[in-house]
Amino acid sequence: MAGNRFGTLFAVTTFGESHGPALGCVVDGCPAGVPLELEHIRSALRRRRPGSGGASTARAEADEPELLSGVFEGKTLGTPIAVLVRNTGSRSEDYDNLKDCYRPGHADWTWEAKYGLRDHRGGGRSSGRETLCRVAAGAVAAQFLSRYGIVIRAWSSAIGGITAAGMDDPAFSLDEAEANPLRVPCAQDAARIAERISALRAQGDSAGGTVSCAVTGVPPGLGEPVFGKLDALLASAMLSIGAAKGIEFGAGFGAARSTGSAQNDRLMPTAERLPSQAPAARYETNNAGGVLGGIATGMALLFTVAFKPVPSITRAQKTIDRTGAEREILIKGRHDICVVPRAVPVVEAMAALVLADLMLLRRADRHQPC
Amino acid sequence: MAGNRFGTLFAVTTFGESHGPALGCVVDGCPAGVPLELEHIRSALRRRRPGSGGASTARAEADEPELLSGVFEGKTLGTPIAVLVRNTGSRSEDYDNLKDCYRPGHADWTWEAKYGLRDHRGGGRSSGRETLCRVAAGAVAAQFLSRYGIVIRAWSSAIGGITAAGMDDPAFSLDEAEANPLRVPCAQDAARIAERISALRAQGDSAGGTVSCAVTGVPPGLGEPVFGKLDALLASAMLSIGAAKGIEFGAGFGAARSTGSAQNDRLMPTAERLPSQAPAARYETNNAGGVLGGIATGMALLFTVAFKPVPSITRAQKTIDRTGAEREILIKGRHDICVVPRAVPVVEAMAALVLADLMLLRRADRHQPC
Amino acid sequence: MAGNRFGTLFAVTTFGESHGPALGCVVDGCPAGVPLELEHIRSALRRRRPGSGGASTARAEADEPELLSGVFEGKTLGTPIAVLVRNTGSRSEDYDNLKDCYRPGHADWTWEAKYGLRDHRGGGRSSGRETLCRVAAGAVAAQFLSRYGIVIRAWSSAIGGITAAGMDDPAFSLDEAEANPLRVPCAQDAARIAERISALRAQGDSAGGTVSCAVTGVPPGLGEPVFGKLDALLASAMLSIGAAKGIEFGAGFGAARSTGSAQNDRLMPTAERLPSQAPAARYETNNAGGVLGGIATGMALLFTVAFKPVPSITRAQKTIDRTGAEREILIKGRHDICVVPRAVPVVEAMAALVLADLMLLRRADRHQPC
Amino acid sequence: MAGNRFGTLFAVTTFGESHGPALGCVVDGCPAGVPLELEHIRSALRRRRPGSGGASTARAEADEPELLSGVFEGKTLGTPIAVLVRNTGSRSEDYDNLKDCYRPGHADWTWEAKYGLRDHRGGGRSSGRETLCRVAAGAVAAQFLSRYGIVIRAWSSAIGGITAAGMDDPAFSLDEAEANPLRVPCAQDAARIAERISALRAQGDSAGGTVSCAVTGVPPGLGEPVFGKLDALLASAMLSIGAAKGIEFGAGFGAARSTGSAQNDRLMPTAERLPSQAPAARYETNNAGGVLGGIATGMALLFTVAFKPVPSITRAQKTIDRTGAEREILIKGRHDICVVPRAVPVVEAMAALVLADLMLLRRADRHQPC
Repeated sequence: MAGNRFGTLFAVTTFGESHGPALGCVVDGCPAGVPLELEHIRSALRRRRPGSGGASTARAEADEPELLSGVFEGKTLGTPIAVLVRNTGSRSEDYDNLKDCYRPGHADWTWEAKYGLRDHRGGGRSSGRETLCRVAAGAVAAQFLSRYGIVIRAWSSAIGGITAAGMDDPAFSLDEAEANPLRVPCAQDAARIAERISALRAQGDSAGGTVSCAVTGVPPGLGEPVFGKLDALLASAMLSIGAAKGIEFGAGFGAARSTGSAQNDRLMPTAERLPSQAPAARYETNNAGGVLGGIATGMALLFTVAFKPVPSITRAQKTIDRTGAEREILIKGRHDICVVPRAVPVVEAMAALVLADLMLLRRADRHQPC
Repeated sequence: MAGNRFGTLFAVTTFGESHGPALGCVVDGCPAGVPLELEHIRSALRRRRPGSGGASTARAEADEPELLSGVFEGKTLGTPIAVLVRNTGSRSEDYDNLKDCYRPGHADWTWEAKYGLRDHRGGGRSSGRETLCRVAAGAVAAQFLSRYGIVIRAWSSAIGGITAAGMDDPAFSLDEAEANPLRVPCAQDAARIAERISALRAQGDSAGGTVSCAVTGVPPGLGEPVFGKLDALLASAMLSIGAAKGIEFGAGFGAARSTGSAQNDRLMPTAERLPSQAPAARYETNNAGGVLGGIATGMALLFTVAFKPVPSITRAQKTIDRTGAEREILIKGRHDICVVPRAVPVVEAMAALVLADLMLLRRADRHQPC
Repeated sequence: MAGNRFGTLFAVTTFGESHGPALGCVVDGCPAGVPLELEHIRSALRRRRPGSGGASTARAEADEPELLSGVFEGKTLGTPIAVLVRNTGSRSEDYDNLKDCYRPGHADWTWEAKYGLRDHRGGGRSSGRETLCRVAAGAVAAQFLSRYGIVIRAWSSAIGGITAAGMDDPAFSLDEAEANPLRVPCAQDAARIAERISALRAQGDSAGGTVSCAVTGVPPGLGEPVFGKLDALLASAMLSIGAAKGIEFGAGFGAARSTGSAQNDRLMPTAERLPSQAPAARYETNNAGGVLGGIATGMALLFTVAFKPVPSITRAQKTIDRTGAEREILIKGRHDICVVPRAVPVVEAMAALVLADLMLLRRADRHQPC
Repeated sequence: MAGNRFGTLFAVTTFGESHGPALGCVVDGCPAGVPLELEHIRSALRRRRPGSGGASTARAEADEPELLSGVFEGKTLGTPIAVLVRNTGSRSEDYDNLKDCYRPGHADWTWEAKYGLRDHRGGGRSSGRETLCRVAAGAVAAQFLSRYGIVIRAWSSAIGGITAAGMDDPAFSLDEAEANPLRVPCAQDAARIAERISALRAQGDSAGGTVSCAVTGVPPGLGEPVFGKLDALLASAMLSIGAAKGIEFGAGFGAARSTGSAQNDRLMPTAERLPSQAPAARYETNNAGGVLGGIATGMALLFTVAFKPVPSITRAQKTIDRTGAEREILIKGRHDICVVPRAVPVVEAMAALVLADLMLLRRADRHQPC
């Protein structure tokens, strides 16, 4: 495991520093014959770009992708699909004053402790800009998954201490989440959160929050025991996103406070049968969040990811420099106040990569000869 | 990724069904020359065995391990270390009435949906008994890690809705956690929790809870960007444990409700220097839980894992059978009321496996030629 | 890649030293529902045991396998299949005089250079006895492959400088290869080779030779470009066998001396069609040995592996000891004169592992959704 | 194992079709701090470009590499190193007549059998042009290895049935191999081979041959038992090169015809000691080719790779088309007569990748804590 690759069969390798010449990804293992156009990737990247909701950075690059390989006449070839995005809008000089000191809450010091040197400009490879590669790769995965009817939708479920309407709330609307720049699934909640963000911005502060995600169309049986459990892989995928600090599936930490009689999802009678001979899945409730024993139940897959507040705040902060001496720094550059709205497509992309990989593994281990 | 292997360099493969002839593990990649005695594994397994705290199963097997390979004259050879534990106390007949129907909250139905067949006796490989292999492998990893001064300690931080004293509480004591069978780090809290468990047992119900873990001695720089982040690997390791439903690092979901000014851990002046030329790490606080950008800060690594309530409750439950028809079942067998106390050594074992693997990866990518 | 694991999806991990308590393997990734009996493994191991042809060691252990997991009611469960074989016939005292010195042609010195310590008894894990694990795992793979009509047959194609009748020779007979202990596919050649071996034994010397292998029923399209080519994986598998020093596919080194007009295999007209839309394969010749561009042509897969002479000769040999001083040694213990006849089932086993893995990969990347 | 990645720790992923927009590689796992300039890659690629020796294609592209990531201020960052080479000189129209039929000896038919579709232009990804990515990645590996004093040199050891002077021949000169475009290590032999090639060209035919390789400076102990043996990994690396049909180490197939007494390399007395406590290596001969039991002896690593003749000959050839009907084709395009001289840097590059990976693995599993 050299750390810049994700997946076993549907595997992506990403590369690129925030202020280097370019970023990109290579998707290795996408089957041949999947319809894929540059526009699929372009529109996914557009969704990741800074919005106008007040929570986003002012760095607005075109992020125009180039498809270098793996597609011929509108279809994947079964060969590696390389996508390239050049860095054009980087203002490295914003980081000159940070060259020799370590920003609190960032990976500056840890990377230098690890490698002995670093590209200090904008966090180098530990920058949130790295997620661009994930979104590009996720767009390819989503194209593959769409053929199976698997649909992945994420949204901002809480920001700055304000929790938005949940899935069971009549006010919950995924269309609304797509319509407002904060990706909050309820217009009223979005307005309250926007106010909270404005207040934090005025105070030179930042906000954390959570992204929730629902995946429908997941075939029962997906997931690889024991260590390749569906939830284990998703947890690894989500915690690999820069600012993520936690994840929970279904009732999650709430289940930990609850009892078995309240948590067990009841299997309901059904006449339908799966190819594997088991009766088709129908659960009365979904506390499990769509996964039991690491294997998909066929119910919607549900999980929530916690993101810490953006560490780049505009207040003066104390830290140290390379000599170990105390320094006070003021962070310039263009930064989000809250990473959550822009994390939404990243969460979706990582989920797509996990599911695409597991779908290929599932095709591999079907017990009947083909 | 065939799913029964964990790790890249320090890699473990586990095998065995709950009621088959035996369970075991093969640790591949442990360096040569590490002192290892059978007793290290035996005492780790003993720690995983049912305690007397009222939360545990009555199935009390000897779980006597056998060391089949990889050790010669008290030291590891650098070759695979195979450990075998025979199943002796299994009462398969307890499960006869479950052969054709699916227990709620268990992986019975999902495994059958996946494989088309299953060993119904005690959950087969989806049984909690599978964690025995993890603990055996973890004992080997812990021996390796002890040479670096890395110490892993977990405890029951909440059970049945009762939260025990936290690390900052003067009542918190890891010695106490080791002394009581519930592994609660405070005797008073342990007593309250024991009462709660008794009440739930009387009601034929079960409890969830959380396990918290602290790792000290982790060298700064540990972790592999981008997808092999320290927290991503730990998340994958912990969510691969049967009943786990969530994980959080440091301030975790609390950080998601907080602000940057409150969360950023301040780097403190220090004269000490690392081999990599960076000044040594010293943070005023540890909201990050010891990891920034996926790389260890050198502060204690802190995380909490959520476990759902044991699904095997003694109340009658409705479910379906293989024909899809409704059935009412009564679960017999010997089951824990709460998995948390016995999950403590499993969490430690999985943490040890992640850290051992990352320590080897760290040795590999040091930037100076050796 | 910790080095004791082979395969991606159909993956085997082996363990065990020659004179330790036991050897074994864990097959992880065999699909569920494959009929598997202990007898399949037992008879494969029997085939690997010392024959009576004069080329073999006198160490005759029962090599009775035990099936520890992964099989229930005669079918694989989709869970790891662990097989254990205890060491019973080892006479470690034969090796006492070799404890402090390095046998020429063996891995004694290189292992000690690598690990700083070794189990000197019978070569420890570098012993030919390690191949027992491969044969056990190969028996599982062969069961899986048999469902696809894939048949793997190897034989001794040359021993001690004498080349046996080739496939195109009317005297060539795979039945004969199975009938004589030297596994030579022609009784007359077997007799000549037996004489040669007797002469070498009398001189205290040993012989090298080659094993050839033909695989029929390989579906066209098998193999993973670019680095997972069918021939690349087979080469890796075969060169991982202790005494192997080379491999060639089809015309092999002969092709290197030839011309394009002589080597190109002509595609022949055919009306039959593959599922992938291409016409079915029919080549006039098979210089390619069944693989083009790393992908199976559908013709028989043909390759030959070169094995060096057994290094344990009974003549006095000069070498050095741990202090670096010159020593003369006489090797005792029970040793083959020629490894080739016993390598035949090992070559078959490794081929089975490669093919089983590629068959699973092929199932995974079929371009149509399932 | 998605097939376009090679290596465990020092891992390269390649991408690109022969006539698509670009080819490239991502090197993931190169340690930080290795001096690396674009010129290192550029000069390696130049060495792979068509020479003037009469054996090469007339397609002469600039093959100008671009370094997209992973290097900052002349040193590697420890992050992925992406290299891009655009396709500029491709004349896709040369291949229009081959769109619907399959060239003999090429992977046209097998790729279509595998994927159901292909990029027919110049072989797509099965083109020899794909090796460009290997050479670029190999240049990075060579930079890393140079810090350890490991030097890899390959040469054309036989072409068109003519064997060049061997290493023991006084006429053998690696400087000469570098000086003539055929990379033959003896000027006289080069002249004879050039004549042979001219004759074959006049006949519209092509030649096979062998590349030999010597690696010095390999530390004893390199290689990972059991399946990650040094020779097994090299075999896999070399057989993954398009036209390779065989490999042998040291005495190779000659060893298979020989006896133990002739083959065993004698260990010689020495006072020097390794860090692992073993005496330093000194063997009287090197029949083993520098590897015993899959582990480096410290002697020069020696191996030879067989390449089949270029299948694109200019004579009319019979084949079939997509309908299965017989067709006669004339191959246009610009093709080598013999792949061997241009395979020399590819063999070196693949050897560099294997050795860089094993050097990292070796750093990982040193038995002393660091």
